[in-house]
Amino acid sequence: MSDERVRVALLGCGTVGSEVTRVLLDEADELAARVGAPVELAGIAVRRPDKHPELPQELLTNDAGALVESDVDIVVELIGGIEPVRGWLLTALRKGRSVVTANKALLSEHSAELAEAADLSGADLYYEASVAGAIPLLRPLRESLAGDRITRVMGIVNGTTNYILSAMDATGAGYAETLDEASRLGYAEADPTADVDGYDAASKAAILASLAFHTRVTASDVHREGIAGITASDIAAARLLNRTVKLLAICERVTADDGTESVSARVHPVMIPRSHQLAGVNGAFNAVYVEADAAGELMFYGQGAGGAPTASAVLGDLVAAARNRVAGGRGPRESAHAALPVRPMGQTPTRYHISLDVADRAGVLAQVAQAFATHDVSIAAVRQRDRNSTASLVIVTHSAPDAALRATVDEIGKLDVVREVVSVMRVEGEDS
Amino acid sequence: MSDERVRVALLGCGTVGSEVTRVLLDEADELAARVGAPVELAGIAVRRPDKHPELPQELLTNDAGALVESDVDIVVELIGGIEPVRGWLLTALRKGRSVVTANKALLSEHSAELAEAADLSGADLYYEASVAGAIPLLRPLRESLAGDRITRVMGIVNGTTNYILSAMDATGAGYAETLDEASRLGYAEADPTADVDGYDAASKAAILASLAFHTRVTASDVHREGIAGITASDIAAARLLNRTVKLLAICERVTADDGTESVSARVHPVMIPRSHQLAGVNGAFNAVYVEADAAGELMFYGQGAGGAPTASAVLGDLVAAARNRVAGGRGPRESAHAALPVRPMGQTPTRYHISLDVADRAGVLAQVAQAFATHDVSIAAVRQRDRNSTASLVIVTHSAPDAALRATVDEIGKLDVVREVVSVMRVEGEDS
Repeated sequence: MSDERVRVALLGCGTVGSEVTRVLLDEADELAARVGAPVELAGIAVRRPDKHPELPQELLTNDAGALVESDVDIVVELIGGIEPVRGWLLTALRKGRSVVTANKALLSEHSAELAEAADLSGADLYYEASVAGAIPLLRPLRESLAGDRITRVMGIVNGTTNYILSAMDATGAGYAETLDEASRLGYAEADPTADVDGYDAASKAAILASLAFHTRVTASDVHREGIAGITASDIAAARLLNRTVKLLAICERVTADDGTESVSARVHPVMIPRSHQLAGVNGAFNAVYVEADAAGELMFYGQGAGGAPTASAVLGDLVAAARNRVAGGRGPRESAHAALPVRPMGQTPTRYHISLDVADRAGVLAQVAQAFATHDVSIAAVRQRDRNSTASLVIVTHSAPDAALRATVDEIGKLDVVREVVSVMRVEGEDS
Repeated sequence: MSDERVRVALLGCGTVGSEVTRVLLDEADELAARVGAPVELAGIAVRRPDKHPELPQELLTNDAGALVESDVDIVVELIGGIEPVRGWLLTALRKGRSVVTANKALLSEHSAELAEAADLSGADLYYEASVAGAIPLLRPLRESLAGDRITRVMGIVNGTTNYILSAMDATGAGYAETLDEASRLGYAEADPTADVDGYDAASKAAILASLAFHTRVTASDVHREGIAGITASDIAAARLLNRTVKLLAICERVTADDGTESVSARVHPVMIPRSHQLAGVNGAFNAVYVEADAAGELMFYGQGAGGAPTASAVLGDLVAAARNRVAGGRGPRESAHAALPVRPMGQTPTRYHISLDVADRAGVLAQVAQAFATHDVSIAAVRQRDRNSTASLVIVTHSAPDAALRATVDEIGKLDVVREVVSVMRVEGEDS
């Protein structure tokens, strides 16, 4: 055991911060044994120290900037948001302090400059808690699969939307009333925009794609569609096909015919077969599939949010950073050496499910099929069903550029024989 | 990019070694970019160099000992077995060379001296490939959950036995004929002892328990029962309860009434509910559940064996070790600071399923129940069913010390009213 203490500054002390503080203060011996040296909580920056009578008063400060500049080894940031946190963390990294953060918004926009600052000073920059809470996912992507070639990362990374979609699937209820219920039960924030419109998942997709493909991908590079447009009809249409609807973050390595590679990162609702392992991930759980050339198919499953799970991820990073301090080195850094271009959504290959109410007369399918042919989209399966004077037509396509699929849907919507486009949704996974 | 080369010695060049060699030679640029310095294959030790015309002849040697002593930074060991590999790796670690190995037999017996040698010289000792092939599992246990308290690691870690049990469940066939079929299809070795008798899983359980509980657990500490005794009746009995049979490695932190902690590590067949996520892991796949105080329930799923998946894990370790060389540090070491005692199987709390053929007359249940009461074992559920002149009695117990459960079964087997003990098996997971 080294005598040298590892000094930790904590920025922010909400639910996660309180748990981190508890472990640092109450489980100091255990932590020291794991790190190989005592870990000392040097200070806690909170906006209003007088609001935290439960914390040791001598540790509290409302001057996060000064705490970061003081003599500490590791800065744990749990405030969130971009400014002023970005400046504090850049200062910390430039001064050689390692940074542990759960800040997905910051990471998904500014990871390049943060990583560069860490590289220059030899500090660690860890952010396991920023994606999928307690599930150890970023470390495996960054380290365990470092000798492999990842081709795809696809998962459920937002618990609120997964709770809502699971409930809609279970009850058949509509989106608005399910969201209300989720808010009432505490599964959705008072302002659920960041979750239901996919911003949260898009930030996580950017972080995942960056690590998986050694390429800087920011949240603005991620194509984003939320779940507010999902109707009970969509869920019912999925159910008829023995599928269910999930909001997925999908990051893919796309290889063009000429061999050039690019990265696609997107967040949108997807119909997946009920036999798919992601279909069984219900409620507020997260799960992420990873496909790699050599490793094959991997899945990581666990709690994606909550104070204790997030604190577990933060503490794991903190122990790693502290051990590196004691050992005198630093952990494996991330690498953006591949610098692949990001493929626009329109050029990303996807597959569509389209459910239509059409006139019940001969020749309808021919007209609809012609619209597909015009846009060079190949049809994988068609089901027709009579419904009084209208008929229902369900089509699943083969893979085609997303723009061609959208253009096809637009054209179909204008056909006289089509009474209503009931549901349009992308699909993933093989039909069983 | 550093100019300094990282020199790698490879011991053994079978399926996994060939894939590692291919990546080192053919994907040198990509590897260098990930490591931050060129990675050079300095030599390959094989028993018979003349049997490897496909490899660069100038790299081959049959003197592994000399290769280990030469000027290399990292030794990748893919020979397997304990001697003479143990001596070579100790030499390498003592000289400060980092070691990457997939050798579960060695690790499960001699990790203490290997880890000590690594600690003394500041070298890395990585062995992700030794458990669950390509699934990144050891690194998360060692690093991501380093700030959490793991209470349980339970999983399917042997593909051969999982293939056999999956097939028995699907076909209703017996053990012997299913094993023959598995051998014919290449899912079982010509000598399947290490797999079917649970030695392979026990080695992995020792490695998992050591990392999870910061305690040295060796394979000989692991209670081990294989699958050779599983009958079609056992599988059928499980099916009647909507359960299936899996060979599980179970590592638990057990807290006694007085608060003292110990570790239980065991490998044996278990009935689990079909609704349990491990029940859906079929064929040669592996999956491991981890429960931790803060992180909650996690699952890791993927391919547990095979050349490419194992090579992926080896290369991940190799990249991590090489990056540490370039950065001048070393990765987080494992820690055995907790040094918890290993709890004997007899004192480990388990639950039993017992299926009996009994005489069809009044008072049978009373006699059987008395046997349970004598050993202070509490019954959770009983089902009775008539079957001509015999009746079937199925009992699931509450948790009790394994020795008490075994004594109960012994006593029941001697009762006049019991015609046959049809199936006895431990159970895990809640009944749905």
